[in-house]
Amino acid sequence: MPSDSRVVTLITDFGANESYVAAIKGVILSINPKVQIIDISHSVSSYDIKEGAFILSCVYKYFPAETIHIAIVDPGVGGYRRALAVKTRNFYFLGPDNGILSYAIKKEKVQKIIALANNKYFMKEISSTFHGRDIFAPVAAHISNGMDIKKMGKEINKINEIAFPEINIKKSGKVTLIQGKIIYKDSFGNLVSNISKEELLKITKNKTVQVFIGKHLIGNIKRSYYEAEKGEALAVWGSYNYLEISVREGSAFKRFGKPNILVKTN
Amino acid sequence: MPSDSRVVTLITDFGANESYVAAIKGVILSINPKVQIIDISHSVSSYDIKEGAFILSCVYKYFPAETIHIAIVDPGVGGYRRALAVKTRNFYFLGPDNGILSYAIKKEKVQKIIALANNKYFMKEISSTFHGRDIFAPVAAHISNGMDIKKMGKEINKINEIAFPEINIKKSGKVTLIQGKIIYKDSFGNLVSNISKEELLKITKNKTVQVFIGKHLIGNIKRSYYEAEKGEALAVWGSYNYLEISVREGSAFKRFGKPNILVKTN
Amino acid sequence: MPSDSRVVTLITDFGANESYVAAIKGVILSINPKVQIIDISHSVSSYDIKEGAFILSCVYKYFPAETIHIAIVDPGVGGYRRALAVKTRNFYFLGPDNGILSYAIKKEKVQKIIALANNKYFMKEISSTFHGRDIFAPVAAHISNGMDIKKMGKEINKINEIAFPEINIKKSGKVTLIQGKIIYKDSFGNLVSNISKEELLKITKNKTVQVFIGKHLIGNIKRSYYEAEKGEALAVWGSYNYLEISVREGSAFKRFGKPNILVKTN
Repeated sequence: MPSDSRVVTLITDFGANESYVAAIKGVILSINPKVQIIDISHSVSSYDIKEGAFILSCVYKYFPAETIHIAIVDPGVGGYRRALAVKTRNFYFLGPDNGILSYAIKKEKVQKIIALANNKYFMKEISSTFHGRDIFAPVAAHISNGMDIKKMGKEINKINEIAFPEINIKKSGKVTLIQGKIIYKDSFGNLVSNISKEELLKITKNKTVQVFIGKHLIGNIKRSYYEAEKGEALAVWGSYNYLEISVREGSAFKRFGKPNILVKTN
Repeated sequence: MPSDSRVVTLITDFGANESYVAAIKGVILSINPKVQIIDISHSVSSYDIKEGAFILSCVYKYFPAETIHIAIVDPGVGGYRRALAVKTRNFYFLGPDNGILSYAIKKEKVQKIIALANNKYFMKEISSTFHGRDIFAPVAAHISNGMDIKKMGKEINKINEIAFPEINIKKSGKVTLIQGKIIYKDSFGNLVSNISKEELLKITKNKTVQVFIGKHLIGNIKRSYYEAEKGEALAVWGSYNYLEISVREGSAFKRFGKPNILVKTN
Repeated sequence: MPSDSRVVTLITDFGANESYVAAIKGVILSINPKVQIIDISHSVSSYDIKEGAFILSCVYKYFPAETIHIAIVDPGVGGYRRALAVKTRNFYFLGPDNGILSYAIKKEKVQKIIALANNKYFMKEISSTFHGRDIFAPVAAHISNGMDIKKMGKEINKINEIAFPEINIKKSGKVTLIQGKIIYKDSFGNLVSNISKEELLKITKNKTVQVFIGKHLIGNIKRSYYEAEKGEALAVWGSYNYLEISVREGSAFKRFGKPNILVKTN
């Protein structure tokens, strides 16, 4: 792929519009001025590796083949954690080895994992507080120029993983209870749970269910916000195919907070 | 125009930096990796179609010819509202048929309106909650690649409109009273009204006037912020040629809230 | 350099995602649709010229040679302040002549300063409130197309400067006291001071010191966040080589506010 069609994405906890993000972009463009840099999010909650890992795992696949995804939520920067470059069949992933890449990589065919070590591909001066600018940015730019990641460090076999919050399944007679958690709240106040469509349909076989948020009965899963009245709460498959509690043209978070979610088969 | 010079803009109520915006960009770049994607705003108040329509109508014309503007404030997503692609003499506009495009389109020469229906130009799986990613993003990318919108659906004659808040004109002897509303507050706290320069000058013929915000007399319309003292309130033609109440190096919103605005001729 | 490899950056106090920023981008792309536009920050505190100047001075150098940096914090817009285009050995800088460019330009070799005056390179209609869109945007785009700034106005010798807050040095026996100020707070709550690494090392010769924030003793300067425990406060060289007070995985601003900082040699 010609180097002027390459895309680099960024997901960090740096805060919207912080100049730190700009420094990363400047470094990348200094090495490859034709790359496209797209912000996925810089409003990951400070130091929240799981939230960053979740957002990355939802969004990465919508990008063109060979996109280079950089994910930096990195409380251990300057310590002993490794810096990774992972090549999968379709993408590259760069980030600290603290689990932030692990949800996404689990869904991909991994081809090569490199612990970055060759400072020929880093900035000349490496700070101990900002590897996004000094290591990940130049590495991404060199990859976008066609450089093989094998030259950039030592090949390793596996990365550190963080557990995806699991759902809890109980049987009680003919009824099955599926208990999950709210793992993300978007800016509309929609409550996104860890119950994926794929997993739930295996259990319920698409039969009607009853969804509860905390102690509130919400009802069966609707097909769209449109099936609820204005101000009515509903359960719906969200944009990334996780079960979501919403309030039509309102905020589910304001109404319910973030209690557990429960799905009950009939 | 070569496809690598095309611009796509986005205006949504998704919240700054939400990953939803990134998914839209990823889909567009997967189809045309050379397009430039520019965020107009993602901080439109949730579900506020009028605010989105107003911002779009102020900004769209500053972009290059053939720019593709996507506007998504879409509480009816998944329901029966149509999805539109509108070609005007200078631009393309994509969005739900709920009025969000109507202020801008009123100012343009419309050449063709298509109700999008041909799923060959959509994502393979279409969610019922996120047509920005599944319909408008791929359609925009195909247009940027030179595809004719005629192939993408059914031609229709008109779109749904929402009324632009009208100003109120009263005569009382030789005095004319023009009453308007604050329709937008920017991040400086400037209060932007619905009284356009064009319309007011027709009435006042550029004579001095008295501007009131709520019960506060502000005075005549100044030529720039610079003509007021620091901390002084003033009336001025804002950046999009609507009458605006400002406080020099301060916030008019904090001082006055958002009451009605009144212009009185002498 | 071919015009499709040129980068334009933006730093303003317009607020994240405001449509004003989009209007600037639209104007630039209308003149040069191939330029890359990168946001450095739009969340400079309203009217705070010093904060804008500081951020620009920290970040500009990470961008490719010939990048065009636009900096707009411009309370005097529409008044008598000049509009500048400055060419240094490596970059272009555009902004009002109110000091916002001065910290960055002090670090660069200045080659030419132009007071912009030739309206052939401006928008046809120039508002008195929005020179970002009407003057700086088209000028940046014409520069990116290779136009010589000499044609754009009158050459002048010097720009207006604002003083960088100076540190205060006192001797008391063998002990040296270096007093500084917190001049920036990032979104993690890190407190960035005006004490630069270069300046402090000249005084301390890299010996251990004691750093105080307000009356709180923090200790010697650590090499990275990682050397502190979770929740512990530390002094560290920040990402732009200014002395910084941080709390590991926490917010120093929440704990200490923004009092003065003091470094004491042993």
